[in-house]
Amino acid sequence: MLSVKIAVDCMGGDNAPKEIVKGCVEALKTGDDKLILVGVKSVIEAELGNYNYDKSRIEIVEASEVIGTDEVPTVAIRKKKNSSMVVGLNLVKAGKADSFISAGNTGALLTGATVIVGRIKGVERPCLATLFPTEKGRPALLLDVGANTDCKPSYLVQFAHMGSIYFENVMGTKNPRVGIINIGVEEEKGDQLTKEAHQLLKETDLNFIGNVEARDIMKRPADVMVCDGFVGNIILKFGEGMANTLFHLIKQAVMERFLSKIGALLCLGALKDLAKTMDYTDVNGAPFLGLNALVVKAHGASDSKAIVGAVNMCRSFIKNDIVNKIKEKM
Amino acid sequence: MLSVKIAVDCMGGDNAPKEIVKGCVEALKTGDDKLILVGVKSVIEAELGNYNYDKSRIEIVEASEVIGTDEVPTVAIRKKKNSSMVVGLNLVKAGKADSFISAGNTGALLTGATVIVGRIKGVERPCLATLFPTEKGRPALLLDVGANTDCKPSYLVQFAHMGSIYFENVMGTKNPRVGIINIGVEEEKGDQLTKEAHQLLKETDLNFIGNVEARDIMKRPADVMVCDGFVGNIILKFGEGMANTLFHLIKQAVMERFLSKIGALLCLGALKDLAKTMDYTDVNGAPFLGLNALVVKAHGASDSKAIVGAVNMCRSFIKNDIVNKIKEKM
Repeated sequence: MLSVKIAVDCMGGDNAPKEIVKGCVEALKTGDDKLILVGVKSVIEAELGNYNYDKSRIEIVEASEVIGTDEVPTVAIRKKKNSSMVVGLNLVKAGKADSFISAGNTGALLTGATVIVGRIKGVERPCLATLFPTEKGRPALLLDVGANTDCKPSYLVQFAHMGSIYFENVMGTKNPRVGIINIGVEEEKGDQLTKEAHQLLKETDLNFIGNVEARDIMKRPADVMVCDGFVGNIILKFGEGMANTLFHLIKQAVMERFLSKIGALLCLGALKDLAKTMDYTDVNGAPFLGLNALVVKAHGASDSKAIVGAVNMCRSFIKNDIVNKIKEKM
Repeated sequence: MLSVKIAVDCMGGDNAPKEIVKGCVEALKTGDDKLILVGVKSVIEAELGNYNYDKSRIEIVEASEVIGTDEVPTVAIRKKKNSSMVVGLNLVKAGKADSFISAGNTGALLTGATVIVGRIKGVERPCLATLFPTEKGRPALLLDVGANTDCKPSYLVQFAHMGSIYFENVMGTKNPRVGIINIGVEEEKGDQLTKEAHQLLKETDLNFIGNVEARDIMKRPADVMVCDGFVGNIILKFGEGMANTLFHLIKQAVMERFLSKIGALLCLGALKDLAKTMDYTDVNGAPFLGLNALVVKAHGASDSKAIVGAVNMCRSFIKNDIVNKIKEKM
């Protein structure tokens, strides 16, 4: 069996290249695959110089340009042929890498992935899926979280199929429960999109449990929750902001009083553990589902830990042959 | 000057009639207005029997039926002419009450309010606005939070005008900052609706600050934040669920260890204070903006405190003559 190769964009994201390269080195502690580090060679080599690692498992591919977060996606992909993103996507297209991870410009990555790697035949729109923490300890899958702002009902049905395949294989849950995010549990509730999608989902062979109210998302009423990319992105970002705000307020409230300050010191371990389980950056990275090969969006603020998570997700995705399973279904 | 009269639906909501009647009695501790309690007279009288209060300030209006939370709004409003909701709305229409508060079926209240009380001329769609807690201590206004699931860009512009008038008068902030909830701060970001609404908002005389990312909502980047009713409802409900989940998880995490258990006891006061400031049910009630008179949706789970908040909101709304200010603008 040929060894798996995972390409990583070392120039994209708030903490590139330092944390990205560090994450790659840490990821080598497990697995037997090869990592292809894409970016400015001298910069990557300088970073790698800080670590001891198995040199036979790392390859560097030169890319002299970087796509910034504020660049217009279509223009950037077309013009910056030597950017780490375009070079990395081309490695996947050419079969030189099995997957590509980037913490860079989301819009550019989606555009580039669709144009260069290409959609699976029959897939109307690839979508971005993310595992997110819930109060049950086990994560749930939310999709689309930002690839498609305006959706047709049929897109949501495809998201549900692709999400179901991904979740079943990566999380090992047979026949996962699928729900649609809505403003009420009754099937007549919702906007035009969700009402129509609900009816279509009822007719599939999916384990469809109906509408999921936003109030209940954290209780994990379904394994896979679908929505359009605008709503999904709002939920993901609002959840992230809300968790940050609450932890900040707790710290503030507790530090204002002497007794509770002592209390806080005693609670610190427990609170830190909790903050960790609720940490969005800790949860792998979001695969684009529906493409001819795996492309993963890592959080823009990814640290080395997030990169390790994304690499592990790629390993599991590739091992379970999810691209081909989606191809068969579509 | 004639005394203000506020009608209250005593039969709607999870905690009716007990908490609603209790809230009305508590609301009499301030103000000099009259409260009209609408519902089954014998039931309301039995509840009132538990309290001492100024009888000259309470009036009971009989309504023998109740609209349940699972009833179809249009049907319920048409058929249940003697329901507390329809009777209360008719009091407002006839000028016998200045405003009406209900914790009952949201859809029925919106339908009933639009049909019976009527829209202000020029208003395309009335919307539901709610003040919600933020980390800055001062609440922000979010609208629409559920009245209109499918919106046109022009609706969002009207929401912005109405929300701005409401916020300026009730919160005392001159020329409040208005933002549009979106998936990115750049003006080209968003779905069709938000992109077009953004352009229209730029051309108004509002203090428009542009897009607000969901991640930043709790930081209160704007005083007034507009979105369609589907997205607004998702944000409100998800925020509520998330806050509950986090407080639950904190309790759990802390109680698992001996030392942190002691710590938690010491922190208890501070955490309770915080939970109170983040309590969604504590924040007044949501007025329907754009109607010929004030109709207020109280949270379905309203307790007496929430009813007092809603009554106080009505007082402030009426005192500031907001209905007429919206009429002038539209």
